[in-house]
Amino acid sequence: MHFADRLSRLCSERGPLCAGIDPRPERLPPGLDAVAWGEEACRLLSARVAAIKPQLAFFDDAWEAVERLAPAARAGGALLVADAKRGDIGSTAEAYAQRILERSPADAVTLNPYLGGDSLAPWIDAAARLGKGLFVLVKTSNPGSADLQDLRLEGGETVCERVARLVHRLGEDLRGPESGRSLLGAVVGLTAPPEFVARLRALMPYAFFLLPGYGAQGGDPRTLEAARDERGGGVLVSASRSLTLPWQGAAPTDWPDRIERALLAMRNDLRA
Amino acid sequence: MHFADRLSRLCSERGPLCAGIDPRPERLPPGLDAVAWGEEACRLLSARVAAIKPQLAFFDDAWEAVERLAPAARAGGALLVADAKRGDIGSTAEAYAQRILERSPADAVTLNPYLGGDSLAPWIDAAARLGKGLFVLVKTSNPGSADLQDLRLEGGETVCERVARLVHRLGEDLRGPESGRSLLGAVVGLTAPPEFVARLRALMPYAFFLLPGYGAQGGDPRTLEAARDERGGGVLVSASRSLTLPWQGAAPTDWPDRIERALLAMRNDLRA
Repeated sequence: MHFADRLSRLCSERGPLCAGIDPRPERLPPGLDAVAWGEEACRLLSARVAAIKPQLAFFDDAWEAVERLAPAARAGGALLVADAKRGDIGSTAEAYAQRILERSPADAVTLNPYLGGDSLAPWIDAAARLGKGLFVLVKTSNPGSADLQDLRLEGGETVCERVARLVHRLGEDLRGPESGRSLLGAVVGLTAPPEFVARLRALMPYAFFLLPGYGAQGGDPRTLEAARDERGGGVLVSASRSLTLPWQGAAPTDWPDRIERALLAMRNDLRA
Repeated sequence: MHFADRLSRLCSERGPLCAGIDPRPERLPPGLDAVAWGEEACRLLSARVAAIKPQLAFFDDAWEAVERLAPAARAGGALLVADAKRGDIGSTAEAYAQRILERSPADAVTLNPYLGGDSLAPWIDAAARLGKGLFVLVKTSNPGSADLQDLRLEGGETVCERVARLVHRLGEDLRGPESGRSLLGAVVGLTAPPEFVARLRALMPYAFFLLPGYGAQGGDPRTLEAARDERGGGVLVSASRSLTLPWQGAAPTDWPDRIERALLAMRNDLRA
């Protein structure tokens, strides 16, 4: 089944929630390492969110971590998005894409577009062949995203709008028969102004938007509305610290309950 | 000792050579896996090149590979540049930078600038503290680099020129006392036109330029000349396939001799 169709179904059934697994060492429960905590968090959440997104930077062996988290994510039916932010030149991307998309149980990977279309092409080929998905960084949620992504080009567009055009062009023919959405999605921070996100949506009508910046980083509810596609979906809201590590310092003993409460609060918040 | 001072000395003594370790499975000698071949190649070359650059995409466990290659690289005195092309938002970059620069034996890491200055800052802090170096992608050697990096901004500059300004601004105060060069370097493809590389050099007078695109990808000798700084150095030419895998298909039995000959040819070529 096409990646975007699978993700669309899950979002309809469970809400457009993606749980970020960013195992910050100082917040882990005593006795659990990054992977062990990640597995626990996946088990708690995998039947109730559409996707689980481990941030590979926090794991010693990134792809082994994905393999170990996958069964717990799969058990509840959530898709696994490897937050890898990879980007390399064509011949290397080819080796990389093959290895990661073929051998890793990840359902999708995040990519960095700075190296251009030929750095994305091998990933797209492999994803199309394997029924997997990709999310290209378009507008990220950090303040420094302005340094490059918001630069204004001759003609008036910004750099990230041009990246949005590239994502659209490369992905528009790779849409799922059920959802009409592409396997090539975009990362768009919820911290961007709603009118700007509306513009990105207009440029990428078929892309799934993976939206970080909910919770810990702030984020405007109107931005989420602006991100929805014509059918009112195509969005996946990602929360990391605020959902899976909702405490300061070391984890309290009732940490699974805290995650539970954070999930309910986020659900209610997104419904409102 | 400051990273740029160490690298400058090595380049003066040995020539500005960086051996790329990109273990393409189809070219490896029979019986050697990626890491085992990488170790052999490091042993062959580490006393005769200034730096060795493993491309992490080709290793199953990237950071373990760096740990295993390090002793062979160190034995001959070459610096180890981890070609990781990482780029992530501030709080993640912090965790990443700390882990990688503190715990990995790599002397330097390549970074992707798409997420902006705050994604680079934690790496720069850690590198300054630990005497390590960084190379930020400015203009890459692949054809698709034109898609984003060459876009023209209002005012006439290109995107990668603006990245060059950022690299200069973040690194200008982090120069080595001996070489006058910064720990914050730039990746600039030898496939770019000489006049364009001269412009990037003018924008980044103190940056070490790591120059891929020699050999397999073509590359103009005038571009290398344009990349040199005022003191006639600050360049590090990287060759991967053409130097460490100079054959087609599976490795012939005399593969160490082939690398030897490729090294001599590259040296002569760079001297001419």
